Amino acid sequence: MLGLTPAVDRAPDWDVEQWLNTDGPIDLAGLRGRVVALHAFQMLCPGCVSDGLVLAREMHASLGDEVAVIGLHTVFEHHQAMTPVSLAAFVHEYRIEFPVGVDRPSRTGAIPNTMARYQMRGTPSMLLFDRAGDLRAHRFGRVSPLMVGVAVGTLLAEPEPEPGCADGACPIPQA
Amino acid sequence: MLGLTPAVDRAPDWDVEQWLNTDGPIDLAGLRGRVVALHAFQMLCPGCVSDGLVLAREMHASLGDEVAVIGLHTVFEHHQAMTPVSLAAFVHEYRIEFPVGVDRPSRTGAIPNTMARYQMRGTPSMLLFDRAGDLRAHRFGRVSPLMVGVAVGTLLAEPEPEPGCADGACPIPQA
Amino acid sequence: MLGLTPAVDRAPDWDVEQWLNTDGPIDLAGLRGRVVALHAFQMLCPGCVSDGLVLAREMHASLGDEVAVIGLHTVFEHHQAMTPVSLAAFVHEYRIEFPVGVDRPSRTGAIPNTMARYQMRGTPSMLLFDRAGDLRAHRFGRVSPLMVGVAVGTLLAEPEPEPGCADGACPIPQA
Amino acid sequence: MLGLTPAVDRAPDWDVEQWLNTDGPIDLAGLRGRVVALHAFQMLCPGCVSDGLVLAREMHASLGDEVAVIGLHTVFEHHQAMTPVSLAAFVHEYRIEFPVGVDRPSRTGAIPNTMARYQMRGTPSMLLFDRAGDLRAHRFGRVSPLMVGVAVGTLLAEPEPEPGCADGACPIPQA
Repeated sequence: MLGLTPAVDRAPDWDVEQWLNTDGPIDLAGLRGRVVALHAFQMLCPGCVSDGLVLAREMHASLGDEVAVIGLHTVFEHHQAMTPVSLAAFVHEYRIEFPVGVDRPSRTGAIPNTMARYQMRGTPSMLLFDRAGDLRAHRFGRVSPLMVGVAVGTLLAEPEPEPGCADGACPIPQA
Repeated sequence: MLGLTPAVDRAPDWDVEQWLNTDGPIDLAGLRGRVVALHAFQMLCPGCVSDGLVLAREMHASLGDEVAVIGLHTVFEHHQAMTPVSLAAFVHEYRIEFPVGVDRPSRTGAIPNTMARYQMRGTPSMLLFDRAGDLRAHRFGRVSPLMVGVAVGTLLAEPEPEPGCADGACPIPQA
Repeated sequence: MLGLTPAVDRAPDWDVEQWLNTDGPIDLAGLRGRVVALHAFQMLCPGCVSDGLVLAREMHASLGDEVAVIGLHTVFEHHQAMTPVSLAAFVHEYRIEFPVGVDRPSRTGAIPNTMARYQMRGTPSMLLFDRAGDLRAHRFGRVSPLMVGVAVGTLLAEPEPEPGCADGACPIPQA
Repeated sequence: MLGLTPAVDRAPDWDVEQWLNTDGPIDLAGLRGRVVALHAFQMLCPGCVSDGLVLAREMHASLGDEVAVIGLHTVFEHHQAMTPVSLAAFVHEYRIEFPVGVDRPSRTGAIPNTMARYQMRGTPSMLLFDRAGDLRAHRFGRVSPLMVGVAVGTLLAEPEPEPGCADGACPIPQA
């Protein structure tokens, strides 16, 4: 019912060439312990403006620190029309206050890197990651705020991951 | 953040004189194991029609069997205008398919019994009960579908209550 | 384009058994010189509540004295649920301030008299009469506020009818 | 009531450096005989996207040939973000099918030429011209579709201007 998939494989990270609204780069490892909502959009995509980003703004304003709301500008058409300069003005005019990353353009095709990695079908797309960084929900198009809320509430209720061994090193659990 | 209060005392049950859309009376005990969303409304309350019942309908259509959506017609004004006969036509015209109870009128005042018991401030009011039947959230006025979803998701993630002794009898747990 | 039909025959008048929000009965003759918007509705018709009456309220609040906005409660189903007592509470709760007439029930069928006379197809229906009292537009269902505005503007631009002989009497034109 | 001002002086024409959705330049003289609705907007202005352009699209789709709907891209901020290249993508993605002109940038300030000439207060702004080319209404911000319709209907009802002497030449009236 909730539309959450089981955690299977560690999700790949995003590939961002430039960030807005943040002091430095953000990656999934740094968000460990928090639920992450990644909103992929294009600034000239009507459904992103009327639905996806409206929901993203409410999530950022209402859900508190346990949920990290991240925007991802995944330009796959009209590349010359949606440059980072245009995006910065868009983010300013639409009062977007959460971090927004610019998906790194592909060297070989129109689809930028993160969009390809996650096999997104278009914009808007919303991805939810659990506290351990696993991808648990992936939606394309308009989504119901109620149902997104149910999914987020379910993920929030999951226990924080044990600090475990990763990348060949085992940290001492903190008291 | 979630607006859920801890479970403290067993919530009182509603006091309904008549049910629509159900074969027989419904009480909290019979809903044990499910999350319950009680939507109190008046059929001539504009905010109930434009917001509260719209959300209730979506909850009923989308959330599946683990969430029981119950309407409660809590008439505290214009009593002659909102009789059960009028309510039945309203429920038909607005395609309300979940069970709706008629709050029992008070013998002494304008506020019907359930409304008084739960100390509702007006309509629309939404109350969320956990799987054990404890009242965990109580909202008056317009509510955000996102935030209701987060609360419902959190309640869904709580474990089902152990079948325990109640009312002087201890059932054998079912396999 | 405007959806206005030519004035042909003098429109029949409405047949109202009871009025709300007015000191006395209203008829087309008494509104001569003004454009008239007649909004037929049922208080339990969802489209009337969400669209037709919203537009009627804006018309009443914004269009000034040259346009008379009249509501007509044309009950053709659930008669016991939409009595004048219920209607009065509805009009109060929804802040309807323009005159509302109750269409006189038929002695022989479910369709009330005015609804039958004008051959309305259901609710909401909106009828526009010109300054001379001729029916010029008749719409069933949701209507575009823009297009209704165009029609009203066109009717407002038509000259006031000459005060002529009617009912066997010829008034002296006023200076 | 209608918000129309009397025709006084011939309105100045717009100053456009580039047109989209049209084969050639458009000016007020060429639209003589038609009512003209000029919608000034910026592609990154939220109110333009959610209100002004939605109304403009409906006007273009519904009002027929007697009303000419013209867009004017009046960039007065974020000039690098709203170039003609970006505008073309915006016009494509938002399915804008009426002619859109790019207001000519000022040599000395941020406000483009047409915006300055008409003393617009910002975006969205809507200007209505009558069949003779006179400016009759000028609105800034969100406007009511109903009231715009009334104004347009009133202007449509005004007689077409006599073909008169202009620019030192007197045409023979056509039969």
